[in-house]
Amino acid sequence: MAEVAHMIDTEVFLAFSTYATIVILKMMLMGLFTSYLRLTKKVFANLEDTNLVKTTEDRRKCVRVDPDVERVRRCHQNDLENIIPFVVIGLLYALTGPDLYTALLHFRVFVGSRFIHTVSYLVALPQPSRGLAWIVGLFATFSMAYRVITTALYL
Amino acid sequence: MAEVAHMIDTEVFLAFSTYATIVILKMMLMGLFTSYLRLTKKVFANLEDTNLVKTTEDRRKCVRVDPDVERVRRCHQNDLENIIPFVVIGLLYALTGPDLYTALLHFRVFVGSRFIHTVSYLVALPQPSRGLAWIVGLFATFSMAYRVITTALYL
Amino acid sequence: MAEVAHMIDTEVFLAFSTYATIVILKMMLMGLFTSYLRLTKKVFANLEDTNLVKTTEDRRKCVRVDPDVERVRRCHQNDLENIIPFVVIGLLYALTGPDLYTALLHFRVFVGSRFIHTVSYLVALPQPSRGLAWIVGLFATFSMAYRVITTALYL
Repeated sequence: MAEVAHMIDTEVFLAFSTYATIVILKMMLMGLFTSYLRLTKKVFANLEDTNLVKTTEDRRKCVRVDPDVERVRRCHQNDLENIIPFVVIGLLYALTGPDLYTALLHFRVFVGSRFIHTVSYLVALPQPSRGLAWIVGLFATFSMAYRVITTALYL
Repeated sequence: MAEVAHMIDTEVFLAFSTYATIVILKMMLMGLFTSYLRLTKKVFANLEDTNLVKTTEDRRKCVRVDPDVERVRRCHQNDLENIIPFVVIGLLYALTGPDLYTALLHFRVFVGSRFIHTVSYLVALPQPSRGLAWIVGLFATFSMAYRVITTALYL
Repeated sequence: MAEVAHMIDTEVFLAFSTYATIVILKMMLMGLFTSYLRLTKKVFANLEDTNLVKTTEDRRKCVRVDPDVERVRRCHQNDLENIIPFVVIGLLYALTGPDLYTALLHFRVFVGSRFIHTVSYLVALPQPSRGLAWIVGLFATFSMAYRVITTALYL
């Protein structure tokens, strides 16, 4: 891991920046989608939020749990649990000076798997589609972690 | 994005470090606040935690859901969903060599919006105060992501 | 914080990479453990997931909340709330050029505290074991944040 600082100027780091930004933006869209569903379905988590929509119902009845909103929230939570580890490990991996082709393969497989995971979750595709997408993303991150540990081990 | 490594030595990177640390510390305070509320209100998520307080009640009754605790937890969760993307995108953004004034504007707007968001959530201010704070923070992050993608695109 | 870019080539940064990767991998194992419990206990969050196991029960009854699964999920959530701040602050801390011995102390205390926290949570050890592990980890992160703020303050 000598001259790691120069790694920041490589194409691998540019590729990491691009794919990390894309997959983080995808994660952020889940928050916007949750808000959109809450406003259109009039399903809120806080009483003060019910003022955001016009309703003839009792406002307290709008503070409830909705299966569609919960599905998007579970998908968002799974993103947090998987995309953030990818970003952290991917950054360290990019600094170990991997081969550009291998690095691009890891980044593309991970980002692709997360888009498939999101579609599988939101459309409720039959399993194991979502499970496989999740596992493929996990393995891409584990593979990068293996390189970081074997290249940079310092306990 | 040439000579990105030198960007780490710029004032933009110092500013990023400062604002990222401040907003992450703010996020961590939510965890401490949750614990404080759980101990003072005697509301726990695990049966073994009830030994932390003296109580004459049946201990199993202390394992329950409390609206005040849930409010802080939702605020904490919203922090996770928004502050972590800011830190990741902000780090890459700082490496693209933006103008110092523009960078400071992004960091200050984001961090300010999150403090307003937290106060709005905890005090239950009437909407759209919390909603606006959330959207402003999102846009600051999107604006930085736009610069990262346009400066560093490598697919 | 002069010549921070050179800090990436130091032993402190190697040590940070190693400990950050280890603790992120530990966090990711919680997701695998949740899936393992869901499959073996036949407890799912989505109706489509029930096809993953053979069951003679009504499939809708498999979509339920299980205390063991929820315990692992709370542990995972606590990891997200504490390990991600450690990684962000730890990265910035490593760039401030701390003494190697001091840095290793911080990283080891934090990572050790999180392993103790996980065991305490999953085995439901009597409190305050888990509470102390959590607090020790928090203080390690706060201590690093203090150095970042005092070394790199730029508001």
